[in-house]
Amino acid sequence: MPAVATRSEMSAPAVPTGKITWLDRWLVRHMLRLAGQPRLAVELWNGERLTASSARNDSTAPVGTVQIDSRRCLLRLLTDPELHFGEEWSDGHVDIEGDLTEVLCELNRSLESTARRRNHPWRWPRLRRPGSAQAARHNIHHHYDLGNDFYRLWLDEQLLYTCAYFDQPPMSLEAAQIAKMDHVCRKLRLQPGERVIEAGSGWGALALHMARRYGVTVRSYNIAHEQVVESQRLAHKAGLTSQVEFIEDDWRNITGSCDAFVSVGMLEHVRPENYPHLGRMIDGCLPRHGRGLIHTIGLNTPRPLDRWTERYIFPGAQPPALSQMTELFEPYGFSILDVENLRLHYAETLRHWLARFEQSADRIRDMFDERFVRMWRLYLAASVATFETGWLQLFQVVFARGASNDVPWTRSHLYADARRLSSTAGESQSVRSQ
Amino acid sequence: MPAVATRSEMSAPAVPTGKITWLDRWLVRHMLRLAGQPRLAVELWNGERLTASSARNDSTAPVGTVQIDSRRCLLRLLTDPELHFGEEWSDGHVDIEGDLTEVLCELNRSLESTARRRNHPWRWPRLRRPGSAQAARHNIHHHYDLGNDFYRLWLDEQLLYTCAYFDQPPMSLEAAQIAKMDHVCRKLRLQPGERVIEAGSGWGALALHMARRYGVTVRSYNIAHEQVVESQRLAHKAGLTSQVEFIEDDWRNITGSCDAFVSVGMLEHVRPENYPHLGRMIDGCLPRHGRGLIHTIGLNTPRPLDRWTERYIFPGAQPPALSQMTELFEPYGFSILDVENLRLHYAETLRHWLARFEQSADRIRDMFDERFVRMWRLYLAASVATFETGWLQLFQVVFARGASNDVPWTRSHLYADARRLSSTAGESQSVRSQ
Repeated sequence: MPAVATRSEMSAPAVPTGKITWLDRWLVRHMLRLAGQPRLAVELWNGERLTASSARNDSTAPVGTVQIDSRRCLLRLLTDPELHFGEEWSDGHVDIEGDLTEVLCELNRSLESTARRRNHPWRWPRLRRPGSAQAARHNIHHHYDLGNDFYRLWLDEQLLYTCAYFDQPPMSLEAAQIAKMDHVCRKLRLQPGERVIEAGSGWGALALHMARRYGVTVRSYNIAHEQVVESQRLAHKAGLTSQVEFIEDDWRNITGSCDAFVSVGMLEHVRPENYPHLGRMIDGCLPRHGRGLIHTIGLNTPRPLDRWTERYIFPGAQPPALSQMTELFEPYGFSILDVENLRLHYAETLRHWLARFEQSADRIRDMFDERFVRMWRLYLAASVATFETGWLQLFQVVFARGASNDVPWTRSHLYADARRLSSTAGESQSVRSQ
Repeated sequence: MPAVATRSEMSAPAVPTGKITWLDRWLVRHMLRLAGQPRLAVELWNGERLTASSARNDSTAPVGTVQIDSRRCLLRLLTDPELHFGEEWSDGHVDIEGDLTEVLCELNRSLESTARRRNHPWRWPRLRRPGSAQAARHNIHHHYDLGNDFYRLWLDEQLLYTCAYFDQPPMSLEAAQIAKMDHVCRKLRLQPGERVIEAGSGWGALALHMARRYGVTVRSYNIAHEQVVESQRLAHKAGLTSQVEFIEDDWRNITGSCDAFVSVGMLEHVRPENYPHLGRMIDGCLPRHGRGLIHTIGLNTPRPLDRWTERYIFPGAQPPALSQMTELFEPYGFSILDVENLRLHYAETLRHWLARFEQSADRIRDMFDERFVRMWRLYLAASVATFETGWLQLFQVVFARGASNDVPWTRSHLYADARRLSSTAGESQSVRSQ
C-alpha cells in the first residue's frame, strides 16, 4: 500500500541535484514548524535526513519519511503546500517511505493542533466557482466518466461509490454497502408501492435495491452519462424497468411528486449557493406525508475543499457544514428528524477501496499512466486520513414536512432485526415505526 | 380538561354587551379569513354563532367554539391576536367550548396553511432582548421560582420539567422521565468515575440519576434559587453529596474540566447571540475525548417566541433552529454526531402535565388566583398544540471533539436492552459502543 514510485517512469524533467546548504536545512525546519512539528522525517536529495524538533525529543520514532528530490520541489512545497504537495507527489518529486495513509494522518493531526494553538477557527474565505447546470455537467464528467471498467477494479461488485455501513464487523465491503442501502431505506420507512425520487444515481445500485427489496418505484436522475447507460442496462437485466427509470438529467429539472426523496453522495457536488434552489425543488416534490434523506460528505466548520483535490479530483465540489445544509430545509419549514455522522465508516470504506486499488495498480497504469496512479493513490489515502482524523464528516440527514405526524417515535426500528431484512425480500413492513 | 371559567370570579371589569351589527359580523369573518378559515365557530356576546366559510362547506362539524364576550374584546383580538388572545383568555373575556387543546391545534394547522399559501417562510424579524447574566436571573426567577409546591402538583415525582421519552408505550410519565434520563446517559456513554458538568439542573433529577446509576461525579449549575436549594436537600437525603455538587451560578461562570457536558432544557433560555459565548465555555471544559449533549426545544425555521408566551410565561426565552444551534459547535470545530427530534414525545409529556394540572386546578387557584390558572392552562394546552402540529421541535444534539475517534460506530447501543438499565444500577459498561 505504501507508494513505490519508479521515478525513471515519470515524465517530469530531470531534477537538479546539488549540495545541501544551511538555507535548505532552515527551510525544511521552517516547513516542519508551519506543519505543527509532525512526527515525520524529511529526506533531502542527497540522502540527508532531518526531523521535527518534537520528533527528536519524542521517544517515538517518526511515522514515516517524506523524500524531496530537489531544491525546486522544496521551494514549491513551501510556497503553496496545499496545492503543490499533490502536484509534486503526482509527478514523483515527493515520495513517502512508510505507510502513505499513516503519514497523511500524522500530517493532518499535526496541522490541526497548530490551527488550534494559533486559535484559527479555520474560517477560510469561500471560493466562488461556477455552480450552473453546465458547469456541473463538465465537473461530473471529469470524475465519474473515467470509465466503468476503471471503477470496477476497486469498488464493490455493485459499484457503490459512497460511504458503506459497517454495522456488524467484520464485514466485507460488499456486505457493508448492502447494509448502507438498508440503513437508508429503513430511515426512509419505504412502503411497497411508494414513489421515490433519487437525485444522483451513481451506477444505480440504490435505486435497484429499493425497487427489488422494498417494492417501490423510483425515478432516478444523474448527469454522468456512462453511469446512466450502465444503470439502464442493469435495470433491464434485472427486469426492473417497469419500477425504475434512470434519467440523464440535472436535479434542477426534477419535477413531479413522490413519497420519499433520497440523495446519496450528490450534495458534495452542489455548490452551497444552490442549496435554496435544491430545497425548493424538494419542496415542490414532497406531499404532506413526504420525507427525505440526504447523505453527504460534510465538515465540522465551513471551509472550501483543499485546492489540489478541487483542481485534480473533484472540480466544483464543496462538502457542507451542517449550518449550510440547514439552508436546504429551514426556508421550507422542513423538520429535521435525524442526523447521523458516519465518519469512521467512510475511513473504513476508503481503506477497502485503497487496498483494492493497490491490487489493481498495474492494470490501472496500463489504462492511464503512472501519474494517474499516483494521483489517485494520494486521493484515496488522503481521504482515509481526512475521515480518520476528523477533517471530513459523513452526514445522513432525515427530514419530513414540518406538519407531518407520520414520523417515527423512536429510531429503534433501525436497529431491530438489522440483518434479517437484507437477506429477505418484501419484508419492509417490519421497518415500520411503532 | 376543557376550560370552564366562571366569569363572575374574574377581576376584569364588567363587559359592555349590545346588539350585533353587520360590522361585527364582517370583523369576525375577516378574523377567520386571516386565520386561514379554521374549522371553528365563533359565538358573540348575544349568543349568535358564525363559522368560517370552509367550515360551513365542510361536512365535518367545527372542532370547537370560541366565545367572545364583547366588541372591545373582538377588536383587541383583531389588532394583535398573538398577544391579545392570551390576555383576553386569561381575563376570561375569551372562552372555548370544546377541547382547548384540539381547538388550538386546529388554529395552528389553519394558520400554518395560510402562511404556506401566502408563501411566507415565517422569517419574522428577530427580537432583541437583554441577554445578560442579570437579565437571565430575573427571567428564570419569574418562571422557575413560582414555588416547588406548585410544580409538585403537576410534574412527575422527581420534578423533571423537560420532555420525557415514551419509548415503550403505554408508559407512565414517571417511567418516561426515567427513560429520558437513561437515553441521555447512553448517548453520553458515561463511564463510572467520569466527571460531568451540567448546565441547568432543574430540581436535580438528572444529576442525581447520573451519579446513582452511572457512577459519575457531577457539578451542576443553576440560577433558579428554589431549585438549587431543593436539589441540595435531595443530594443530602440520597447520600450523594460527595458525587454531586449543586452550584447556584450562571453558566457563564462555569470553569474546570469534565469528560462530558450536558444541558437539558436550558438552551431555550440562552439568547442566540450568546451561543458563541456558551460554545467557548464548553470548548474550555472538554478535553480531547470529551463529548456533550444539548437537549432543547427548537424550531424548523428561526423565529421569535410568540409574544404572549414571551411576556407572561417565559421572559427572554428563544428556542433555536438547528442552524442557530450550529453556532455553538462550528466555531470550535466540534463534531455533531447525532441529532434526534423528539417533538411527539413533548406533546405527550405536556398532555400528562395538563391532565395533572387540571386535577389540581382548585388547589392552584387557592395558591394563586383564577387568572393564573387560566394563564397556565392556556400555556400548557397551547404547548401540546405547538408540538403536536409541528410548530415546535425537541432536539437532542450529541457532539464530540472533532479529532476524537472515541465515538461510537453505530447508535445500536441506545436500543439494546433498553429497559434493563434503568432497573439495575451500576451496569453502565453495557452502554459502551462497539
